[in-house]
Amino acid sequence: MEISVSRKTHFNAAHRLNVAHWSEEKNKTFFGPCNNANYHGHNYDLIVTVTGEIDLETGYLIDMKYLKDIVKEDVEDRFDHKNLNLDVEDFKTLNPTAENIAIVIWQLLRKRLENKLKLKVILYETERNFVEYNGN
Amino acid sequence: MEISVSRKTHFNAAHRLNVAHWSEEKNKTFFGPCNNANYHGHNYDLIVTVTGEIDLETGYLIDMKYLKDIVKEDVEDRFDHKNLNLDVEDFKTLNPTAENIAIVIWQLLRKRLENKLKLKVILYETERNFVEYNGN
Amino acid sequence: MEISVSRKTHFNAAHRLNVAHWSEEKNKTFFGPCNNANYHGHNYDLIVTVTGEIDLETGYLIDMKYLKDIVKEDVEDRFDHKNLNLDVEDFKTLNPTAENIAIVIWQLLRKRLENKLKLKVILYETERNFVEYNGN
Amino acid sequence: MEISVSRKTHFNAAHRLNVAHWSEEKNKTFFGPCNNANYHGHNYDLIVTVTGEIDLETGYLIDMKYLKDIVKEDVEDRFDHKNLNLDVEDFKTLNPTAENIAIVIWQLLRKRLENKLKLKVILYETERNFVEYNGN
Amino acid sequence: MEISVSRKTHFNAAHRLNVAHWSEEKNKTFFGPCNNANYHGHNYDLIVTVTGEIDLETGYLIDMKYLKDIVKEDVEDRFDHKNLNLDVEDFKTLNPTAENIAIVIWQLLRKRLENKLKLKVILYETERNFVEYNGN
Amino acid sequence: MEISVSRKTHFNAAHRLNVAHWSEEKNKTFFGPCNNANYHGHNYDLIVTVTGEIDLETGYLIDMKYLKDIVKEDVEDRFDHKNLNLDVEDFKTLNPTAENIAIVIWQLLRKRLENKLKLKVILYETERNFVEYNGN
Repeated sequence: MEISVSRKTHFNAAHRLNVAHWSEEKNKTFFGPCNNANYHGHNYDLIVTVTGEIDLETGYLIDMKYLKDIVKEDVEDRFDHKNLNLDVEDFKTLNPTAENIAIVIWQLLRKRLENKLKLKVILYETERNFVEYNGN
Repeated sequence: MEISVSRKTHFNAAHRLNVAHWSEEKNKTFFGPCNNANYHGHNYDLIVTVTGEIDLETGYLIDMKYLKDIVKEDVEDRFDHKNLNLDVEDFKTLNPTAENIAIVIWQLLRKRLENKLKLKVILYETERNFVEYNGN
Repeated sequence: MEISVSRKTHFNAAHRLNVAHWSEEKNKTFFGPCNNANYHGHNYDLIVTVTGEIDLETGYLIDMKYLKDIVKEDVEDRFDHKNLNLDVEDFKTLNPTAENIAIVIWQLLRKRLENKLKLKVILYETERNFVEYNGN
Repeated sequence: MEISVSRKTHFNAAHRLNVAHWSEEKNKTFFGPCNNANYHGHNYDLIVTVTGEIDLETGYLIDMKYLKDIVKEDVEDRFDHKNLNLDVEDFKTLNPTAENIAIVIWQLLRKRLENKLKLKVILYETERNFVEYNGN
Repeated sequence: MEISVSRKTHFNAAHRLNVAHWSEEKNKTFFGPCNNANYHGHNYDLIVTVTGEIDLETGYLIDMKYLKDIVKEDVEDRFDHKNLNLDVEDFKTLNPTAENIAIVIWQLLRKRLENKLKLKVILYETERNFVEYNGN
Repeated sequence: MEISVSRKTHFNAAHRLNVAHWSEEKNKTFFGPCNNANYHGHNYDLIVTVTGEIDLETGYLIDMKYLKDIVKEDVEDRFDHKNLNLDVEDFKTLNPTAENIAIVIWQLLRKRLENKLKLKVILYETERNFVEYNGN
């Protein structure tokens, strides 16, 4: 019996969209207001979904507390109240689009979960724009 | 690396559920209050999801502004503040159930996206009733 | 000890904004797409708030079930799945703006509550537009 | 043309997490505050999703009223304002984790739907923790 | 310049509505399913609002962290994952209606705030039922 | 008949909390992670509420389109996708706490409304933290 368990959390961060080897003009045209040199920001909402076989004895797929803890350590402590471009190693060279942030989060959490568990992340940049990544 | 990007939008419209070749009685029994001859209405919420390979240079799957623009042109301008049965060509003969509205929206947007991109739409008639269609 | 108790409910209806003694042109200019002759519609959310002295024996201000019942009888049964302009007596001559709908609902519920209780209604036409009326 | 139709509903219940054949100590350590002997509770939100071929004549996948009725009979009437551990037969021996509640709901509703329809349930224990089960 | 600052938080608890000196029959009739002897439960949402003069130097009315901390100490630690009737001193004799819970929370927090600050609490028992108390 | 009409809108911005004439150490201690020198950010939600006498002919308190337009001009165009500290004149010397942002927005919109109308703004920094200001 395969089941999915999800945990929703959030972090607040500043970012700007910019491709380092593009001209200022090209970046401005392509990314529009998201390219603002002084940054803007978001309340990011994150849903982490783990899928696998339920443990018949406990009725748990995974201890939610463990899931909560690894999301706190690997995502919240790293991203919350930060400037993604300046403060977060992962985005020193990688453009912090919602797509890339989701992929980075997936890669961080993937390492903390047993191989038999599947992982999906949904990242809301706003309640109107969101991305989903499952590593496939 | 396949990723999904979603955009949430909304439109307000009137409609009634009615099968043209059925008797008044049969329509009333089958569709209940949704068959009211004078129409009723909804704030429809729409989530459009596009899936494909991320562009490694920009970190974008698709320009959200383009997605926003085609949803405005093909859905909002066509459906918002309209009577779906009377004002919208697509529902002159097709019953505007949530299912059919979702399919029509999917067909309209499918034409505006490159073939390599997958498309899914979720249409909320209310926050308690919603449908999902991905063309398969 | 004065306390307020609120109940949230909802109804789906069609309407159009139109002043009967104005010209078609003037109505169209003033109300824009809300004037569409074929109507449009909304999922209206309604919050009814009653304020008064708590009953020290029961710990209730008012029986929520009674509040739920009068809202069902006087608002939902009258407005839900209706065309406000055509099906609802109150709007035969009164323009069904959110403001007027809120006032009509307040007047209907005011009659069902003891005089010592205060009444306020909040009506959401969409989650972005809403009105509040308390009879003062 | 395969489409999915979803209905969101809710019930309020008390529960505690406990494995009958474990020691008090082990249960307390494993389930933490969720093991509180006097129970705690939740407003559970439930999304039931049915997938299948649309009926081309009516534009319905399934009559939403039927879906609403079976969810009321099999879920709400059974679980709402109940203590899951004490009042609900299904959890006399089964630990009422969100995972197990979702599986029980799925099994109850599966019997009420035609075989050609697929069924998925999403159960929110809180808006931050939820599970999904589709019988595979 | 008077301003209000609000903090939203939540706790999950079991309760039953019951007046100790009433007969079983009377309690059952008056409180209906909320009287279930085995309890039911809710995810309570709480909004605490503090009103007063802004500090012109810091631009703060009150340090949100202090507000967060006293709500954690006096409300969350006391009520979360508890049975209100059995585990919480305040409701040993007081019926834990939403009204009474809001009043108890207000009284607990009132002691932690300077006199010059006004206090209001809004307690959501569900997203459809909520109460508001400001001590007047 | 006095009624209130509200419009909800939003903007995304970066900011940091900092008192210019305080030492780096004092700012860091007082504002914690909100003082991060590289900024962080939020999706701010704004509710603007106007109160006054309803126009009996139109059933409007105020033309929602006018309200929407002045919020766009005076708030969204000024704050959206900006760094409040660096890009917005109002916060060159004023600390951009939620309280101060709400007061600045109130002062900007106050000038655009007739004197007979009352104005209130609610600013959500996150869905858990918000402030309210009405000029009194």
